[in-house]
Amino acid sequence: MTAAHVKPRLLGHQGTVPGLNFLHVHLSRVIKAHQVPFSDMNKPGHLQLLEDWMRSYRPEELFDEAGRLRPEIAALAPAGAQRMSANPRANGGALKRPLRLPDFTAYAVPVPQPAQADAEATRVMGAFLHDAMRLNQDTRNFRVFGPDETASNRLQAVLEATGRTWNAGTIPEDDEDLSRDGRVMEILSEHTCQGWLEGYLLTGRHGFFSCYEAFIHIVDSMVNQHAKWLKTARAVPWWRPVASLNILLTSHVWRQGHNGFSHQDPGFMDHVANKKADTARIYLPPDANTLLYVTDHCLRSWDRVNVVVAGKQPAPQWLDMDAAVKHCTQGLGLWEWASNDRGGEPDVVMACAGDVPTLETLAAVDLLRRHAPGLKVRVVNVVDLMALQPKTQHPHGLSDPDFDALFTTDKPVIFAFHGYPTLIHRLVYNRANHGNFHVHGYGEEGSATTPFDMVVRNNLDRFHLVADVVDRVPGLGAAAAYAKQAIRDKLVEHERTIAAYGTDMPEVRDWRWPGAAEG
Amino acid sequence: MTAAHVKPRLLGHQGTVPGLNFLHVHLSRVIKAHQVPFSDMNKPGHLQLLEDWMRSYRPEELFDEAGRLRPEIAALAPAGAQRMSANPRANGGALKRPLRLPDFTAYAVPVPQPAQADAEATRVMGAFLHDAMRLNQDTRNFRVFGPDETASNRLQAVLEATGRTWNAGTIPEDDEDLSRDGRVMEILSEHTCQGWLEGYLLTGRHGFFSCYEAFIHIVDSMVNQHAKWLKTARAVPWWRPVASLNILLTSHVWRQGHNGFSHQDPGFMDHVANKKADTARIYLPPDANTLLYVTDHCLRSWDRVNVVVAGKQPAPQWLDMDAAVKHCTQGLGLWEWASNDRGGEPDVVMACAGDVPTLETLAAVDLLRRHAPGLKVRVVNVVDLMALQPKTQHPHGLSDPDFDALFTTDKPVIFAFHGYPTLIHRLVYNRANHGNFHVHGYGEEGSATTPFDMVVRNNLDRFHLVADVVDRVPGLGAAAAYAKQAIRDKLVEHERTIAAYGTDMPEVRDWRWPGAAEG
Repeated sequence: MTAAHVKPRLLGHQGTVPGLNFLHVHLSRVIKAHQVPFSDMNKPGHLQLLEDWMRSYRPEELFDEAGRLRPEIAALAPAGAQRMSANPRANGGALKRPLRLPDFTAYAVPVPQPAQADAEATRVMGAFLHDAMRLNQDTRNFRVFGPDETASNRLQAVLEATGRTWNAGTIPEDDEDLSRDGRVMEILSEHTCQGWLEGYLLTGRHGFFSCYEAFIHIVDSMVNQHAKWLKTARAVPWWRPVASLNILLTSHVWRQGHNGFSHQDPGFMDHVANKKADTARIYLPPDANTLLYVTDHCLRSWDRVNVVVAGKQPAPQWLDMDAAVKHCTQGLGLWEWASNDRGGEPDVVMACAGDVPTLETLAAVDLLRRHAPGLKVRVVNVVDLMALQPKTQHPHGLSDPDFDALFTTDKPVIFAFHGYPTLIHRLVYNRANHGNFHVHGYGEEGSATTPFDMVVRNNLDRFHLVADVVDRVPGLGAAAAYAKQAIRDKLVEHERTIAAYGTDMPEVRDWRWPGAAEG
Repeated sequence: MTAAHVKPRLLGHQGTVPGLNFLHVHLSRVIKAHQVPFSDMNKPGHLQLLEDWMRSYRPEELFDEAGRLRPEIAALAPAGAQRMSANPRANGGALKRPLRLPDFTAYAVPVPQPAQADAEATRVMGAFLHDAMRLNQDTRNFRVFGPDETASNRLQAVLEATGRTWNAGTIPEDDEDLSRDGRVMEILSEHTCQGWLEGYLLTGRHGFFSCYEAFIHIVDSMVNQHAKWLKTARAVPWWRPVASLNILLTSHVWRQGHNGFSHQDPGFMDHVANKKADTARIYLPPDANTLLYVTDHCLRSWDRVNVVVAGKQPAPQWLDMDAAVKHCTQGLGLWEWASNDRGGEPDVVMACAGDVPTLETLAAVDLLRRHAPGLKVRVVNVVDLMALQPKTQHPHGLSDPDFDALFTTDKPVIFAFHGYPTLIHRLVYNRANHGNFHVHGYGEEGSATTPFDMVVRNNLDRFHLVADVVDRVPGLGAAAAYAKQAIRDKLVEHERTIAAYGTDMPEVRDWRWPGAAEG
């Protein structure tokens, strides 16, 4: 039933029922509020049922002869903070105090040369969170949530500043860090963690949720509804911003070889990328210092859904803190120390987003330098995925001239990506050079296997990247066939090595970036 | 710890422990099965801990001097159907009997002319399911699952063939269709419905799950794991196929105006499109006869995740059963009766996927015919979304020559899509004409509003589609400015109409396809 169906018929009663005129005007709203109270309004008796229902509100007691709400009825509505919408519990942003954060640059990992030493990115982040927890101890303003994975995700430093929330009794065998006052909230239920955090944010506090990447899909629907809430609330003038919903995805797809295929899924990024541009952010810091920057940035933001994907395993460190700040502030950029195309056009752009894809890209660039020293290679790393979108579609988006300058308008771009390759295509499809983007990412191939075999199975490894360069860069001539043969041989050697030893080839495991660019 | 770390050290013990040679060879598998039992193998004492652990298996009792498993130990493993993997309960496909289905063409809605009369697609499907339920009553082989929505989704005919499953007591006020033997399983928990259906399929039976489109995200993670299971099982030689996981998404994004923004989300298609090509299928039948074909097809298939998106509201019917069979068998195709470009090149291709986008596209084509009769318009409708992908990426994919013939290589394609526009872009990004694809779909704009306002808010309505044609087709010259002005005026009229009456303009509500093509 719609208002237009009903209105012409009810008009005949207009003179006899005080206030019905008022009801007419607002009938569509009444019907919306009641969803679908009646249907088939052409059936005999249905109009009478509607009239009976409308009269059951006794409009003659509610409205005066002119159809205005009587003042004594209007006065029943509560005023001030007693209004449901103005209740502080329903507008936590009005209670929100800023989170006190230490200077994140103080936790920097020293990186005198790219990729000479390893670090565990989330462990470094844990030290920052430890001090953040201490700084906000008196305001009781900050909590960390996770499905029993704070230590497994290498964030255990935070447990030296506070305990795990525990309200029941304890026995001597229990961990010592259980505490009624603990601010690390753990339960092996992603639903509960997400719900706790949403409630915490909506009542004016700050927090973040760390989760295995594959299992964050459990809360897809909840994150959807929170994003819809943020979008809708932003259009309400008296609504005050709340702290962002920060989700750290560690224990990610590329380092789940010991858990297997069930633990390998990077699709949450696709899910979040569907949300409104003014709500969704996705960050893929490639190392510890970039993760520190991104963590600080997300904790200071409001009204966003921030997704951060970062590994917990020992991994090469690329940028010192100064370079990390410059890189992350821009969201993406050219790594000059890894490129050799300065002063000319590149033959190929090697792009990467995510820690493991960055490692494979840099290892591929090293192979290219050694075996094709004349090839001009540009390396572009992406931290803020939304920077790839056009500026017209996302506030973080790069302008077309800036994008074209970085990715060229006509050179092959071999893009190594943490997630499903189509996410890159959907972000860049209307850029000038899109036809030359060749994205390597997760192809839904997984198992219990070695770290390098995971990337090999999905064509994201250094050898497949080099093979793609050989295929895409014109003019490599006769050398191409030999290069491809060498790559195929190397991949067979890989297969045989993991079958025999259950571990990756030493040349892969022990690879380090060789030093300054030779360009 | 990896096998390679351990192996050289343990080799020194080789002569002293019987069977340890055998353990060496399989050490990487043992470690995989135990995940990460030890780390930091360079620390003092850790190697001894490993050795103690290995010796705790008492290998001297299990293996002979040559490292072979002793025959009396090997004989402990069960044989035949007692093996865990060969147990019929773990390989339901071996028990599966085909579902008996009536001839779906017998349920056809008569369509002597396109879009002259309305039908409710899922109600027609319900009649087919009613008879399917009857045909399989003796084998007890078929169930329908849903979160309390079988009737709300207009499938109530099935309740005349069977009851709702109910094992508790009843009171006189209860619905009469509660039954211990009922085969419609309802509970307001998408998780439970999905879990019930998975278990039912994996034990060799057939079924399907009908759900509100927005809330199917609740089971994203469960569907993921089922798809992973299917992919992995397919690689196991003794595994027998199970019936497909069929999900009907009705009460979809475009007809949730009475429920509002929280009920509007078409993103499940994106989620499923990430799964392997040999597992995932997505169908968008535009009317009742095409839905009948698709339902029959999905219920007869195996080892798939089939997602069907179809409305339950009264909607125009486009194809008679003969045309529906031809169209659905191909997955997508040109609708000649709606096109006027025969014998020449089209000026524009109007493509559509989904019932509401098909309606808006045909209404736009009607406007174009009336206001720009010289314009050559081709209409292409897509039922099987995967047909858009390249043949190299999906078995249903169209070959490039076929795709290019349909969508041209250089003409604008105005594509009206049920879901987020980027899903179309990611499917067609490497087609020759991709640069000319302009996709209209859900832009995360919703509210409690009228059906037509939902499409207007997301630029998916007939007027925005016509405006896009005006913008994209070259040579419309001075007429373009007047056409755009008329469209903008019409959209203002729309806004004023819904504000005043809460219902859509009569010209929109009552629009019908005018008749045979005039081309």
